[in-house]
Amino acid sequence: MTKPGKDGFHMPGEFEPHSGTIMIFPERPGSWTYDAEPALPSFLKIWEAITEDEKLYLLVSPEKHQKAEMLCKNLKNIEILEIPQNDAWARDTAPTFVRNPQTGKVRGIDWNFNAWGGTFDGLYADWQNDNALAGAFCQKMGFPIYDAKPFVLEGGSIHSDGQGLVMTTEACLLSPGRNPNLTKEQITETLCEYLGANRVIWLPRGIYHDETNEHVDNICAFIRPGEAVLAWTDDKNDPQYALSKACLEVLQKENIIVHRLPIPDVPVCITEHDLQGYVFEPGEDTRELGERLAASYVNFYFTNKSVLLPQFGGENEQSDKRAVSIMTELCPNRKIIPIPARELLLGGGNIHCLTQQIPALKER
Amino acid sequence: MTKPGKDGFHMPGEFEPHSGTIMIFPERPGSWTYDAEPALPSFLKIWEAITEDEKLYLLVSPEKHQKAEMLCKNLKNIEILEIPQNDAWARDTAPTFVRNPQTGKVRGIDWNFNAWGGTFDGLYADWQNDNALAGAFCQKMGFPIYDAKPFVLEGGSIHSDGQGLVMTTEACLLSPGRNPNLTKEQITETLCEYLGANRVIWLPRGIYHDETNEHVDNICAFIRPGEAVLAWTDDKNDPQYALSKACLEVLQKENIIVHRLPIPDVPVCITEHDLQGYVFEPGEDTRELGERLAASYVNFYFTNKSVLLPQFGGENEQSDKRAVSIMTELCPNRKIIPIPARELLLGGGNIHCLTQQIPALKER
Repeated sequence: MTKPGKDGFHMPGEFEPHSGTIMIFPERPGSWTYDAEPALPSFLKIWEAITEDEKLYLLVSPEKHQKAEMLCKNLKNIEILEIPQNDAWARDTAPTFVRNPQTGKVRGIDWNFNAWGGTFDGLYADWQNDNALAGAFCQKMGFPIYDAKPFVLEGGSIHSDGQGLVMTTEACLLSPGRNPNLTKEQITETLCEYLGANRVIWLPRGIYHDETNEHVDNICAFIRPGEAVLAWTDDKNDPQYALSKACLEVLQKENIIVHRLPIPDVPVCITEHDLQGYVFEPGEDTRELGERLAASYVNFYFTNKSVLLPQFGGENEQSDKRAVSIMTELCPNRKIIPIPARELLLGGGNIHCLTQQIPALKER
Repeated sequence: MTKPGKDGFHMPGEFEPHSGTIMIFPERPGSWTYDAEPALPSFLKIWEAITEDEKLYLLVSPEKHQKAEMLCKNLKNIEILEIPQNDAWARDTAPTFVRNPQTGKVRGIDWNFNAWGGTFDGLYADWQNDNALAGAFCQKMGFPIYDAKPFVLEGGSIHSDGQGLVMTTEACLLSPGRNPNLTKEQITETLCEYLGANRVIWLPRGIYHDETNEHVDNICAFIRPGEAVLAWTDDKNDPQYALSKACLEVLQKENIIVHRLPIPDVPVCITEHDLQGYVFEPGEDTRELGERLAASYVNFYFTNKSVLLPQFGGENEQSDKRAVSIMTELCPNRKIIPIPARELLLGGGNIHCLTQQIPALKER
């Protein structure tokens, strides 16, 4: 094993067939309000939808193992694995998988994880379990591992179209909290080597106030090769406008077909009740009353047959319906499954951030 | 002329003798509310204080030349120069001066200026005049110029102790809007070459919500070689706490003597009246009601004999007095001159951002 690209492996599109999905049971008190109770119904809906279509690997701490077993007792197609973690964002801490189309073999990449910025602007102070999670999963399941450390990367900061094109954001991957000793060119090269790609589109920005330093997976997603949805607003007074517009210009210059997917009309903000539900650790990024959350419908997840689409409810009922209708039109062969997601957003991300696909495989 | 360091030139500490100070007349309607009228009294106080001690070069557009002449008619020691600009931040757009201690010669450095982030997250869309300002001043005044373009840098993002030590912030100089094609090591090297330094301290962060990507000159300043003041808060719930603490740890590890200078106890925020006073251009970063401004007492300026210290007034009367008292103790040989600065802060910076020192010189 050298590097994935050189070995004939590449990262498939998420819309290509999966053999399964990895998720993590929500537990962190600084992310999941009121012991995660308000968020668990959304998690259950996601677990139900995924296990309809493919295998679900649910990672859980020893403390929550029994609770997870009870909650999932009616689900088939699920395997619960005890692997310690610091939070539930499988997209960012589980392996990125690459596949060899000739052999159907699948291998995992183990990036360096530093809680979205390390000591520079990371979101919590101890991310040891998170950083060990990808390796632990691969070892337990028998996937060969490409060790990409010390290169810092979260899965949510990249999208692949499965045809050699990768998309990321400058705001995140050029942030001082990631790989400040590498130039943009060197980062481009590293992405190409590991993801078996030959081209990287650098979007300048992501979603306003996105605490991941603006991950690409909250603002833009491929729905098929050469075609993407982009989080959008027509409101020039909204701080999102300039960010989305800058991304649109890059995508158009790169000849990507872009479909605009408007963000919620009413900003989703932290209420006093929300705030009371968090328990923050020392060194952990806290929330503030009235803080605008990075709500976007682009943070959906493709299972083998469906699209799990975030819905924010409340004053955004119309916006929610608009998103369902746009995605229905764009993905005519898939079932659009609306998932109540305000409580997921309170955790700091959304459905895509909570999931990681394992490509279809013939052997490991 | 090769590079300043190689030619025997280096950047003196601001606390070392000046031959003069450069400032720019405030004009930009998106920075200075109500045609700059509320800010002009603060400017006048600064001009008066500076011209007590040293020569002031006031740069002004043709449109405001007459107004500037009238306002300054009672000041001696001032030279008004017509040089076009896009805003009034002389710290960031005027030359950085380096001096040869053997000969007493002084030369200017002409950095690349892109309005604090260019198309990535710059604050306005046209910065052509700003970018030409340093060269224009040097040419008009006969200072030889080191052309550092295309390297992007603003004067506010560096401090020199005059003894080979430079201080900057990762948040700014590693931001994607500056020099994304250079690594941290390459930026360190460039700073050393141009500033005649041999060591760079990288503070991780700056002042919360500082739209310059957290310039060092708002959070930390040398008061003499090896000794600095650091903007501080003891309030662990304030978002500034973690930022200042991270800086403190770096400074202590680097053996700098640190004096804590608490930020205002009450956040300084944009009011409805403030908001009504701005006139924003297309492509310009706007302000929002209630937005917290990056208020810090560290953004002071050393003239030859005094410290021009920002004061925020209103509910911060006690905080203002505390800052005066700390600086009085730290700089026993200087006069501490309090300057009402809320209206300067509304412009997007403070006293240090508005000034640029020219070191004492024997010849050009």
